[in-house]
Parts: sequence; structure tokens; C-alpha cells
Amino acid sequence: MEVIEQISLLRNRLAAYRQEHKQTQIGYVPTMGYLHDGHASLLRRAKEQTGLVVLSIFVNPLQFGPNEDFEKYPRDTERDLQLAEAAGVDIVFLPSVAEMYPKPTQTTVSVKGITSRLCGASRPGHFDGVATVVSKLFNIVQPDKAFFGLKDAQQIAVITQMVEDLNMPVEIVPCPTLREADGLALSSRNVYLSAEERSQAVVLSQSLAAAEAFISEHQHFTSEELVEAVKVHIRKATLGEIDYVEALAFPSLEPFTSIDTVTEKRIIVALAVKFSKARLIDNQIFPIRK
Amino acid sequence: MEVIEQISLLRNRLAAYRQEHKQTQIGYVPTMGYLHDGHASLLRRAKEQTGLVVLSIFVNPLQFGPNEDFEKYPRDTERDLQLAEAAGVDIVFLPSVAEMYPKPTQTTVSVKGITSRLCGASRPGHFDGVATVVSKLFNIVQPDKAFFGLKDAQQIAVITQMVEDLNMPVEIVPCPTLREADGLALSSRNVYLSAEERSQAVVLSQSLAAAEAFISEHQHFTSEELVEAVKVHIRKATLGEIDYVEALAFPSLEPFTSIDTVTEKRIIVALAVKFSKARLIDNQIFPIRK
Repeated sequence: MEVIEQISLLRNRLAAYRQEHKQTQIGYVPTMGYLHDGHASLLRRAKEQTGLVVLSIFVNPLQFGPNEDFEKYPRDTERDLQLAEAAGVDIVFLPSVAEMYPKPTQTTVSVKGITSRLCGASRPGHFDGVATVVSKLFNIVQPDKAFFGLKDAQQIAVITQMVEDLNMPVEIVPCPTLREADGLALSSRNVYLSAEERSQAVVLSQSLAAAEAFISEHQHFTSEELVEAVKVHIRKATLGEIDYVEALAFPSLEPFTSIDTVTEKRIIVALAVKFSKARLIDNQIFPIRK
Repeated sequence: MEVIEQISLLRNRLAAYRQEHKQTQIGYVPTMGYLHDGHASLLRRAKEQTGLVVLSIFVNPLQFGPNEDFEKYPRDTERDLQLAEAAGVDIVFLPSVAEMYPKPTQTTVSVKGITSRLCGASRPGHFDGVATVVSKLFNIVQPDKAFFGLKDAQQIAVITQMVEDLNMPVEIVPCPTLREADGLALSSRNVYLSAEERSQAVVLSQSLAAAEAFISEHQHFTSEELVEAVKVHIRKATLGEIDYVEALAFPSLEPFTSIDTVTEKRIIVALAVKFSKARLIDNQIFPIRK
């Protein structure tokens, strides 16, 4: 496994690889590091589907708000490199902030519509930062396939829309969320939870199970009724505060009133819950019975 | 010469070319058609520097304002194809609006700073439209080099900034403006001029010659003094109305007061003059004596 910190060196390395292996695809997993088994599952999937796997680790300041946790975001490069090597990564791209932003960027990539709801409403500017850095990383790595976890479903929706709108020559591969034994979605931010919060955090996945039960029991329902069925469960976490719970058409992330009016084939129930030092997100995508 | 209308066919054709000619670069000239010798000079330069020359002809609705000339913009595909063939073009990409924008784009690429002055001030949203469509075209063609005329100096500045900020894997090659015998910069919009306007339009290039004389005669001067020296000449065109005349540092397009405070090595004098049916632009870039 190679670790490369400079853009120009990475470009040269990948150009040489493409010259030698004309028929082989390059797979790419962009991350902010502090890797867990969820990331490892993306890397293993990339290894199955492509000939060369590039992992990037970059905590992107552009996607953090002024009062968010950029400085405190957990980092452990040594452990990350061990996990990457075990998962079969070929190249780790580990740029500094100065390497990625030698000067303040004048250019922004914005995706409207999709970004105005869910985390976009709670975190203004966040998805512009995501779309801009992912554009940069795609242009640097030029992968054939990029692998993203469905835990950040809105991020996948934004990236997919951007790739489609801008004709980016990359295939986005959504990958299932990995969970702890009790159902908690794996997240780098889970380390922020106290022991008591950790045990209560199970309400996120339980509330999505409640959504599943609600949907299977009801033929016709409103978005509001579904959201309320979810909120009932989350409120059991006395240490957690609901940031949002929303039911939206997927992948457009358009709101709906009655399920009967949704023209897409799937809906997503997505939620964010704030604990003292961690804001956790989770979601589930459901097919619509017609 | 091949003419390709579909994105997927163009991608396949270029992928096949890359497989066969590993060491050869692809050159690209994006245009809105109604080609003239200025475009031909870009195409010839592309032919000299690269192994395969792609020309695109696409009048991009996104970069026209609601009261601008999108519908009336001059088009003559047959003549364009003749000029392209004569200039040695290998592939003409000729997409429809529906091919480029099957759905309204949710994604916008914006470059701030550079776009707020000159044509950006007169044409709000114009450079977002330019940056967005050029991003799309670059992602479709994936050229090694792209050739732009310096007549649209602000466009080159915007594209260069975007390429740098987003790490796009393409080299931007600025090419000199071509002129008629009397100095008028070649432009597709020159056809809009009446005979009398055409003869008066020579004031644009004459005023830039006046700027050159002014700069060579003065060691120290303000931006305002230089601009006034230019305006004096343009006012000789009784049928033309000054849209803007600006002197800025280049390529940052930052305004300056005294020439002594400019930290860059060059300045640009850029101007736009409105005739009855045509708004013409011109500019010249000058080195700074230190």
C-alpha cells in the first residue's frame, strides 16, 4: 500500500497505472478518516469491483460550519492506515489542507433543491462544501467508480445529482449502512457518546424499524403520520434531542403529503438526533407498494 | 471529420481513441458556432499542439439572460462544418439543448470575485452559465488541452480560476484575438452591425491603441486616468454607447487605483460598447514596467 500526500504525485502514479492497465477500473472511496467497519465495507466492495482502490482521508474544512466540530473531528491516521491495508487498499491519498486549498477557493459547486432539506437545513453551506471538495477529489483521482455509504443518504443524493448534471465520468455506487449488534449505525462520531447516551442511541435504528412496521401496516398514510410514528420512538431517548425527522421521496428528496401522490418508487425516512457532543444521523429507504 | 450529436457516442469514440493512442493528447475548442477566422485560429493551434481536435458547437441557453439574444444568436451549422473541416477538426460535437440539459440542472458552478466585474456586472448569471456548461463539456470530452480566445479575456480568467480551484485535469491555452484589417476584433456578433456602425466599430481597437500609447508615455498613472484616455476615443463613435471600460490587474481582475500598487505583472484594459443590435467587447493585456 502506498501513501501519497501530493496531488501531482498521485496524478503521476494513477496515469502510469492507467497506461499499464488499460482495461482495469479505478475504484475510489473518499473519507474524512477515523475509519470504522462501515468504511472497510466500502473498501472491500471497491476491491471486488475494481482493479485499483484509492482511499482518500481528508477532513474538509469547507463542509464544516463556523460552530461545528472541524478542529475536534476525531483523527487517527495510524489506525486508519492499518484498517486500509487490511481492507486491500492500494493507494491512500492523504493531502494536507494547504495541498487541497493552497489559496481560498473562488469556485463553488452548488446543488439546489436536494440540499435545502434534512442536514442541508440544519447545516447551511455544508453540501456546497461537500459538492466542491468531491468535485476536486474526482478531478484529482478520476475514478471509474466511487463508493459512498447510504448512511449519508442525502450526500449520495447530492453527489448523484451533481454527477448527472455535470456529466462527470464516474459511476456512484451506494453501499448499505453497517450497524452495531444493537442496530446503531457505525459512525466516526459515535466516539463522542457517553456510555448512557450510547445505550440510548439505539432509538435511532429502532425508530426506523418502527417506520418499517408502520409502512407495512398501512396502505395509505401521510408523511406527517409516518414521521410521528418515528418520533414516538426517538423520544424514548431522554438524553437525545430530535434535530429533524423527515419522510421524503427518494432520490429526489422532494416532500410529499399523502404517500399516494409520490411518483417515485421509493421513499426515505431520515433523522438526526443531537446528544451532548454528537449529532447522529440515520435513515432507511423503503420501496412503495402501488 | 466526424459529426457526433450524442454524449454517449462521443464518449465511446474518445475512449476508443485513447485506448489506441496512449501518448497522444486530445485538444478541445468549445464554441457557440457561427465560426469565423478567430475560431479557425484556435482550431489550427489545437491541431499543432494535439493529436485529435474536438470542436463543440453549442449555444448554451444557461449563459444568456432573459432579455439577451439566445433565440436570435446567429447560427449556420453547414458553414461551420465547412470551416471546421478546412481547419483540420477531427470530431465535431453538436449536441441539442435536450442532450445537454435533459432536465433543468440543479447544479451550478460559480466563480466569485472575477465574475463580479466587466461583463459579469453587465450580465448577471452569465459566468455561472459559462462555468457550468464548460464543466459539463470538459467532463464529456476530457481534453488534455482546451483553447480559448483572449477576446473573451474574462471568460479565460474565470475558466482558469475554476480549473485551478477544482483541480480539473486540463490545460487552458489562451490564444490571441484575431482582427479585421482595420483592427475590429472578429466576433460572431459583428454581423449585427449596420454599415455605418461597422465603420465606427473601429473605435474599440483604436481606443486600446490609445491605452497602449498612454501606458508607454506615463510611468505613474491611476486606473481612472487610463480609463478616461480610452473613453475619449470610444466617444468618437456617435452610434455606440459605452457599457463599460475598466483597467484591472490581470489575471486576478482585481481593481487598482494607482498602477504603482499592482502586485501582478500585467494589467488588462477591457471594454464593451453597445450598438443598436450588437454589444461588442474587446481588450488588451499590457505588461507592467517596474
